[in-house]
Amino acid sequence: MLINKLAIIGVGLIGGSLARALRRAGVCNHISGYGRDETNMQRAIELGVIDEYSHDITRVVADADVVVLATPLATMEPLLGALLPSLQTKTIITDVGSAKGSVVQAARNALGDRLRQFVPGHPIAGTEQSGVEASFADLFVDHMIILTPLPENETTAVETISRMWESCGATVVSLSVDHHDQVLAATSHLPHVLAYALVDCLAGMNEHDEIFRFSAGGFRDFTRIASSNPEMWSDICIANGDKLLKMISQFESHLAGIKAMISTNDRDNLREVFARVKHTRDTMLAERQSLLSRKKPD
Amino acid sequence: MLINKLAIIGVGLIGGSLARALRRAGVCNHISGYGRDETNMQRAIELGVIDEYSHDITRVVADADVVVLATPLATMEPLLGALLPSLQTKTIITDVGSAKGSVVQAARNALGDRLRQFVPGHPIAGTEQSGVEASFADLFVDHMIILTPLPENETTAVETISRMWESCGATVVSLSVDHHDQVLAATSHLPHVLAYALVDCLAGMNEHDEIFRFSAGGFRDFTRIASSNPEMWSDICIANGDKLLKMISQFESHLAGIKAMISTNDRDNLREVFARVKHTRDTMLAERQSLLSRKKPD
Repeated sequence: MLINKLAIIGVGLIGGSLARALRRAGVCNHISGYGRDETNMQRAIELGVIDEYSHDITRVVADADVVVLATPLATMEPLLGALLPSLQTKTIITDVGSAKGSVVQAARNALGDRLRQFVPGHPIAGTEQSGVEASFADLFVDHMIILTPLPENETTAVETISRMWESCGATVVSLSVDHHDQVLAATSHLPHVLAYALVDCLAGMNEHDEIFRFSAGGFRDFTRIASSNPEMWSDICIANGDKLLKMISQFESHLAGIKAMISTNDRDNLREVFARVKHTRDTMLAERQSLLSRKKPD
Repeated sequence: MLINKLAIIGVGLIGGSLARALRRAGVCNHISGYGRDETNMQRAIELGVIDEYSHDITRVVADADVVVLATPLATMEPLLGALLPSLQTKTIITDVGSAKGSVVQAARNALGDRLRQFVPGHPIAGTEQSGVEASFADLFVDHMIILTPLPENETTAVETISRMWESCGATVVSLSVDHHDQVLAATSHLPHVLAYALVDCLAGMNEHDEIFRFSAGGFRDFTRIASSNPEMWSDICIANGDKLLKMISQFESHLAGIKAMISTNDRDNLREVFARVKHTRDTMLAERQSLLSRKKPD
């Protein structure tokens, strides 16, 4: 058995889906949960996602082989501090936070030399839904998990967390903390900010009723991420603020370039940019798809 | 029979899907097509989308009850000029262009006092695909069609075009030309520009390989519209340039506001904006869904 006792701190979409996937894979004997919302925790029991829960985090992590922190970024430092007294030396801690630099700093502050037990991780998966009710065992299938192992980590700890995610059907890759935060600022944090800014912009217009009434599928796809959890995303924007601000500035330059082409009726350059972008997107996403297909087990 | 002979100018995704839908609804006897791409036109015949085609536009529109222009915006004025010599007084012309002010100007230039036969229209439907191969009869089901009738139009002409679209399963609404272009600048043209600018921005980064490799579903949804037809979209941006430029400027202000909150670590205001946006999007899209449901025939 890969994991005898698993402790999930925060049994929401990600924590709940991980519990479901590990249980289905049969790699986990017992799952204990911790969370603030009593209704959500009881629902997690009813749905069979976890075996038990407690509002005492030291009880939840005691004897655990693996602890998974799946709570908003800003809560991680106090939670790590609170669980430290009952943390056994055999226990490996990981997290699912969307920005890794701030999480590593929080873990360093809270855990001191027990930082070696902390293997930072980030599943590139999710929906705009929240809570255990939205969780499902297939969430990580064919998705990427990025681990950002620390120099302090033992190899066996990193391997255990890798195998945990692979047993959920995911592909695990390693990046440095800094590289992760740069890539995610570009592919995830910036798009979320753009979607929030767009919907906020349209909501403030006189025609906002018509605007949403006449919206097409493309608009709904484009703004889906603006329905994401506000607490989680304000945390992420602050946590990865430096890199995100640089990305926003770069985006602003590109938008200004297109704006200049429109204002000068420069149809030829506009078509050239759009054609280059379409080619990039189509090619890159095809490569990504083939990468995931190749990594699938036979 | 609503339409004895239908002429489709441009048998691509939209023109082909309209032909398929009308044929399925049994409201059209004969469909004649016109297009530049010989392979596409032959494929349209093989797929049974049209009954015949010709490279002579005057032959295609002769005797037609309804002519549908489904070509890029920049081609409409020359095409209207070319078809005018064989245009009978009974024939109603409509189009599917995404910007209406420029199309009405093109029609006025090309048709003169025959403008009364031209009923401008815009189906709020599409995918990022192009060509007759991508067309399908269900494209307009539960979608909105915006007509922007002109003072010159006869009521019966507007009614015929409305009934044509309703027989495809769509909901038809009327807006003024100016109102249409304002609403579409906000819900469609601005999001396309943002998606193109984002992908262009990321493609220029050193880490662009990782960026696309680690992209999640949200990113792919968000950038789907950046795979749209470059010719069509450069045309739209120029055609609706004035209104689009104003929307881009408004968006830039909202983005600058969020950027300022991030740079001052203003988590509370960020969360407030994101929560307001999520509420707006969830509420507005729910209302839109219920509007479409109510309008469905029993």
